[in-house]
Amino acid sequence: MSSGERRVTAEALRGFGRDIFVAAGMSADHAAQVADVLVWADLRGVGSHGVERVPRYLGMIEAGGMNPAPDMRITTETVSSLMIEADRAPGPVAMGWAMDRAMEKARETAIGWALVRQMTHSGAIGYYSLRAAREGLAGLAFVSSLPNMAYHGARTASIATSPITIAVPGGDRAPVLLDMSTAVVAGGKITQARNAGVPIPEGWALDDDGNPTTDGARATIPMPLGGPKGAGLSLMMECLISLMVGNPIITEEIGFQARGRPIRQNGLCIAVDIAKFIDPQEFRAQVDALVDLLKNQPAADGVDEILVPGERGDRVMAERGRDGIPMPTARWENLGKVAEKFSVAMPATV
Amino acid sequence: MSSGERRVTAEALRGFGRDIFVAAGMSADHAAQVADVLVWADLRGVGSHGVERVPRYLGMIEAGGMNPAPDMRITTETVSSLMIEADRAPGPVAMGWAMDRAMEKARETAIGWALVRQMTHSGAIGYYSLRAAREGLAGLAFVSSLPNMAYHGARTASIATSPITIAVPGGDRAPVLLDMSTAVVAGGKITQARNAGVPIPEGWALDDDGNPTTDGARATIPMPLGGPKGAGLSLMMECLISLMVGNPIITEEIGFQARGRPIRQNGLCIAVDIAKFIDPQEFRAQVDALVDLLKNQPAADGVDEILVPGERGDRVMAERGRDGIPMPTARWENLGKVAEKFSVAMPATV
Repeated sequence: MSSGERRVTAEALRGFGRDIFVAAGMSADHAAQVADVLVWADLRGVGSHGVERVPRYLGMIEAGGMNPAPDMRITTETVSSLMIEADRAPGPVAMGWAMDRAMEKARETAIGWALVRQMTHSGAIGYYSLRAAREGLAGLAFVSSLPNMAYHGARTASIATSPITIAVPGGDRAPVLLDMSTAVVAGGKITQARNAGVPIPEGWALDDDGNPTTDGARATIPMPLGGPKGAGLSLMMECLISLMVGNPIITEEIGFQARGRPIRQNGLCIAVDIAKFIDPQEFRAQVDALVDLLKNQPAADGVDEILVPGERGDRVMAERGRDGIPMPTARWENLGKVAEKFSVAMPATV
Repeated sequence: MSSGERRVTAEALRGFGRDIFVAAGMSADHAAQVADVLVWADLRGVGSHGVERVPRYLGMIEAGGMNPAPDMRITTETVSSLMIEADRAPGPVAMGWAMDRAMEKARETAIGWALVRQMTHSGAIGYYSLRAAREGLAGLAFVSSLPNMAYHGARTASIATSPITIAVPGGDRAPVLLDMSTAVVAGGKITQARNAGVPIPEGWALDDDGNPTTDGARATIPMPLGGPKGAGLSLMMECLISLMVGNPIITEEIGFQARGRPIRQNGLCIAVDIAKFIDPQEFRAQVDALVDLLKNQPAADGVDEILVPGERGDRVMAERGRDGIPMPTARWENLGKVAEKFSVAMPATV
């Protein structure tokens, strides 16, 4: 830990988040759920989806975009599926409920398919897939969202950087957790290049006028992963999620700049009960064997270690769980402002 | 049509395929299903998955890899899921049955999830997703297969170029059909470059020793789409499909060269009954609206037309349905050899 760096324990940060969301009108249960999802992202090194979002979530509540006391209800249900009207709930509350119900249905029928209509920001959706894997099921979570990425061949922000997450349980090993967006690169990497004043590679982003750029300061519209592939995956997510729940996002929001718009999302959580198909212990052992085999392949030049999905985040989580979560000064000061506004004590530093 | 080019109608080609697979031991029904999947790929311009495969399928039957008279049976079943033991069936027979049963279950419970264990080559799996979309459902089809692509960071063919296909019905428009592999580029494009003697771009492929190459003649191992993303998607398919049905492919086959090995696959077909969640007419209208909107976005420099998934294949299909399917001489001669061997008449040319 570098001298003078401010760190906070996950527990203290969760308590702070819970307190401030309660002060903003959420129930204690909902506030704890939202805080847990944000702190989980910080623990895994995904600061963009961590407590950095607290001021923005509070702003969304103030502006009426996020409903701190939603009237969530199941509007459609079969033995293996359901649809939740989320009433602009905080995403973690709606998605957490959806995955829990999907898991219940999976334990009955092998498959649970839970759609979420009209929530706000989902947080890092790997959280929900991993929840299923930790309980021995396979978990998949997807979100459709505002257009913020170029559709293949278009000059505009016309489709979402829809994330895809899939998790399966391991045996002695941790669950394997794939958590990827359909963009060619994470927005954070463009921001890093902008802040460092270095050019970004060709093919990463367009500027506001829809022209390709290597200038991080002008790069505003990320391009899709593999052109038609990433764009196509994102388009299918909008169809399978937003159009299925009757809440189209792309067609209603296109033409607006996604930046600064109230966040509006639909979601899908899928759970699969492995035990309905195979002895779960055999499945877990085979996951471990597959991971071991891949990690032991001869590595490409310049590659120190072959990693499997989720492994990097697991390592950051182990370190931050032990030493605390670093709080850069700007983030700390932003949290300080909302803490003061809501008369909530800042978390203790370690 | 260029002067002297040999073309065959889809109907004639289907009849030829049916006759030859019957001669090789399949039932008339199974032979017709396999022929239809192969000819569908030819109609859509995907020659690599078309009747070009007939001699290879016949070789697999002769070598004992493909079972022309499989004892397929459902080994596990719930209201919304099933698992088929395919007994090394031709992939089209197993996957077609799986999607049909998934659709039946979706009409009951909203979701049908059908796993296929131990089949041979699936053919172009967009066929099965599209079958669901044509009947008004959403369809998804996936396959796990032999390791033929580099895992991210590895020098070896260590994971499969697992295809992902998703289809939804349109209204006035055709269904949207995403059909993509998890590799950075189709193997056919590397072959084209090799045949043309032009270099391939960096990042497409490794050579047999696991070194990056731009020499199409040495490029044998395609690289994954977006590095960890394509490799991760493929890994999760192996977990969700092969490990779920207790028939691991990667761990058992790695180290062998995929080329020339008997093809061995597992599959997954998912159907979603849209009508359980929303008025299907509204859904279809919203798909059309979304497609229209994307196609009408301002196009990037050098892009004549923005295309949605499946649109290019639909156009080739319209043209080939009208004018016939072109038969390059090498392919025609290869078909001639097996026609002679099995005493089957060659299809009439147009």
